[in-house]
Amino acid sequence: MHKCLWRNLLKNNAINKLFTIAAITLGITACANSNVKNDVNTLPKNIIFMIGDGMGVAHTTSYRYFADDKATKEVERTVFDELLVGTSSTYPDDNTYVTDSAASATALSSGVKSYNGAIGVDVNKKPVLTLLERAKQLGKTTGIVSSSQINHATPASFIAHNESRRNYNQIADAYIDEKINYAPKVDLMLGGGTSYFIRKDRNIVNEFKSLGYSYVDDLTKLNELNTLPALGLFAPVGLPFAVDSDALPNRVEAMTKTALNLLATQSSDNGFFIMIEGSQIDWCAHGNDVACAMGELEDFAKAIEYAKQFTEENGETLLIITADHATGGLSIGANGTYDWKTDKVKQINSSLAVIIPAFLSLEKDVTDKVIQSTWKKHVDFDLSASQIETLKSALSSKLKKEKMTREIKAIINDTTLTGWTTGGHTAGDVQVFASGVNSHLFNGQQDNTDIAKKLFKQLNSAQ
Amino acid sequence: MHKCLWRNLLKNNAINKLFTIAAITLGITACANSNVKNDVNTLPKNIIFMIGDGMGVAHTTSYRYFADDKATKEVERTVFDELLVGTSSTYPDDNTYVTDSAASATALSSGVKSYNGAIGVDVNKKPVLTLLERAKQLGKTTGIVSSSQINHATPASFIAHNESRRNYNQIADAYIDEKINYAPKVDLMLGGGTSYFIRKDRNIVNEFKSLGYSYVDDLTKLNELNTLPALGLFAPVGLPFAVDSDALPNRVEAMTKTALNLLATQSSDNGFFIMIEGSQIDWCAHGNDVACAMGELEDFAKAIEYAKQFTEENGETLLIITADHATGGLSIGANGTYDWKTDKVKQINSSLAVIIPAFLSLEKDVTDKVIQSTWKKHVDFDLSASQIETLKSALSSKLKKEKMTREIKAIINDTTLTGWTTGGHTAGDVQVFASGVNSHLFNGQQDNTDIAKKLFKQLNSAQ
Ligand SMILES: [Zn+2]
Ligand SMILES: [Zn+2]
Repeated sequence: MHKCLWRNLLKNNAINKLFTIAAITLGITACANSNVKNDVNTLPKNIIFMIGDGMGVAHTTSYRYFADDKATKEVERTVFDELLVGTSSTYPDDNTYVTDSAASATALSSGVKSYNGAIGVDVNKKPVLTLLERAKQLGKTTGIVSSSQINHATPASFIAHNESRRNYNQIADAYIDEKINYAPKVDLMLGGGTSYFIRKDRNIVNEFKSLGYSYVDDLTKLNELNTLPALGLFAPVGLPFAVDSDALPNRVEAMTKTALNLLATQSSDNGFFIMIEGSQIDWCAHGNDVACAMGELEDFAKAIEYAKQFTEENGETLLIITADHATGGLSIGANGTYDWKTDKVKQINSSLAVIIPAFLSLEKDVTDKVIQSTWKKHVDFDLSASQIETLKSALSSKLKKEKMTREIKAIINDTTLTGWTTGGHTAGDVQVFASGVNSHLFNGQQDNTDIAKKLFKQLNSAQ
Repeated sequence: MHKCLWRNLLKNNAINKLFTIAAITLGITACANSNVKNDVNTLPKNIIFMIGDGMGVAHTTSYRYFADDKATKEVERTVFDELLVGTSSTYPDDNTYVTDSAASATALSSGVKSYNGAIGVDVNKKPVLTLLERAKQLGKTTGIVSSSQINHATPASFIAHNESRRNYNQIADAYIDEKINYAPKVDLMLGGGTSYFIRKDRNIVNEFKSLGYSYVDDLTKLNELNTLPALGLFAPVGLPFAVDSDALPNRVEAMTKTALNLLATQSSDNGFFIMIEGSQIDWCAHGNDVACAMGELEDFAKAIEYAKQFTEENGETLLIITADHATGGLSIGANGTYDWKTDKVKQINSSLAVIIPAFLSLEKDVTDKVIQSTWKKHVDFDLSASQIETLKSALSSKLKKEKMTREIKAIINDTTLTGWTTGGHTAGDVQVFASGVNSHLFNGQQDNTDIAKKLFKQLNSAQ
């Protein structure tokens, strides 16, 4: 369905469903003359802000081809394709043009550009008001979901104010201490981070419990959370990679479902504001690990699909999705060859964070057979004889770890025709996706600070 | 100015200029409630279709930072930023996902996906109707502009039908022979290609002249073209790179001005269709040559600025701009460093196609001083002592050409922090930019074939 038509569903489900069916029948696909009810004077009651950390254009495009059913002639569209409305620049306030997650999350949370490493503070290290804080001031229920630790740069920039993203314990403390007058407690927090929230010097989880928070620490018990406020911490630091998670690979989707269902029934009359991060698209891309990235993108896409459906059915919600920056300099196709081998990418069943240590733990003088069988535990395509030789020579190298890492990456990237230029971030514009009330405000090219500024206006037009 | 407001200028210049001034005064920037006159029942009289060959998201973003005035706090927006409306997928019809210029240009010219190498033919090598041909059928005046030879893949896919882009002479012949019943003569053609159009076996330029075409072969005499039909061929193959052209670096801009001015006054009553290509963004990116790419992007941006102004003033025109694919796997920032050195990029005054041969022509045993002075003829920053050593050793290498090429590229890419993954194309979605009558039809994510299908409808709603 053409995405403009979906907008008609927002305000009056019954009437607009009829309109939509009629429109489909008539083949109407244009926005201009449809009964779009968006109005700058009508504000959304709820805002869902989703951030794919490190998710550049090549990342969402590669996910489309990864997800493509080759048995059908057409390439199936993804939820990203359905929701795209524009793009965003991401540069920090220091003339380098290449941002980190902290500076970009601060721009997205507050509308203020800052330096790389800044958590909710400006270039003078002064705290800035965030969207989540403003929502709390306005009596809205607030939430965050991340597959990283919940005190990692992106969620932290919505909740805390710290001169450095590296001060993880201080940031965790801030989540409950409200040291700065307008830093609120968040009503719902789901992600990783027990190593920062249950420490020798302080048990912040118990402090939250004593304030009446429900708490779970097992992802399979997400449905036991049925009252707010609530806290769920499911790993010491970040959650395991989707590609390595047999039991519940789509944990961002699972947390998103729980969060939106809780917020739908338990929010204040003023609605809610939630930030949901697909944190580890970035981490996989830092590792130049294409199969890992596809797992994270699939999970995040499914979370977006649920949020999109929620937004369409709810009718009073604005859904906005973007990325803080792109990571890895990913390209679809590499080395001069005009192809990208999705069938090979699909045959990789573990992250490099699992595959590389498996090889490093082998004895120096193993047989070809052991090399091949170690590989086949994680990857469905065979190593060639020369690739086996290369890995054996890496095993007996003095720089074993560096050489093994480089060679395994080269095998996977050359086989799949995946390109990377960096283990860090890049500065190409990222995409903006939106649905629901006033989603048209995000059409076109904008700066990451503009996204926050527009959202402040959607929270409160007087702001 | 917000781009939505410009749309109001299209239908009634006088009234809408007043409205626009009022809107600016009131600070109105939203589209939703403005008097947008776009209507699917009103078709544009003229269509300007601009294609940046190889122009991915990293390319236009890097141009923004390259063009940024570092003396001002803000990063200035570019014409790309002003006009962005959506994105486009570019995959060819062969499950490789990575297209060449011929398959993508055929998709953009006809709405039909084909194989890499196809010029205006489908997967069965059967000719397909192109937008330019349809425009001609409808009595519109037609034109093409390119900085490549005018029979190169992109323009050729709008005019000719050939199973292979490599059949340059056959394609040039088709421009005048009309071998296929609906292949029209194009009324205005500007670009390179005398080696294909003035051959030993055939002088196609003279044939065009005998049909009444004006002809120029000197870019500085563009203003001598003042009647249609007209042909201008300014180089044996492609025009020189912008970065190497001291006299007239912005030759796409110059040809665009001449073309639009001619079409404005001399088109038929039915209007015009013109395809304008920034052909060499792709060529520079194939060479992983960042300074070369910036020169081409600057020229193409200036051509777009002129076309945008024309569209706004004309009021009956649709301007649509996209890319056929991205080239080079370009990234802004590389090697783990969060920076991109625009000051260094600006200090490079020649293309690699000039710099590398300059070094290859040196004697084996030149002094450090000669290496440095050869470099400084083309680049304003100094070589370090170790870089001089590297280039000297490349000079005496058995694989002199390969080694020199690799080392000079490495110096420039490492100094500027520019990343590349390939000498070929990549499959990330490209951007879509639009202005003028019914430009909203291109909002959101779409396939390259959808762009052509929408344009066919804009040519003739009954089609
Ligand atoms: Zn990162
Ligand atoms: Zn190319």
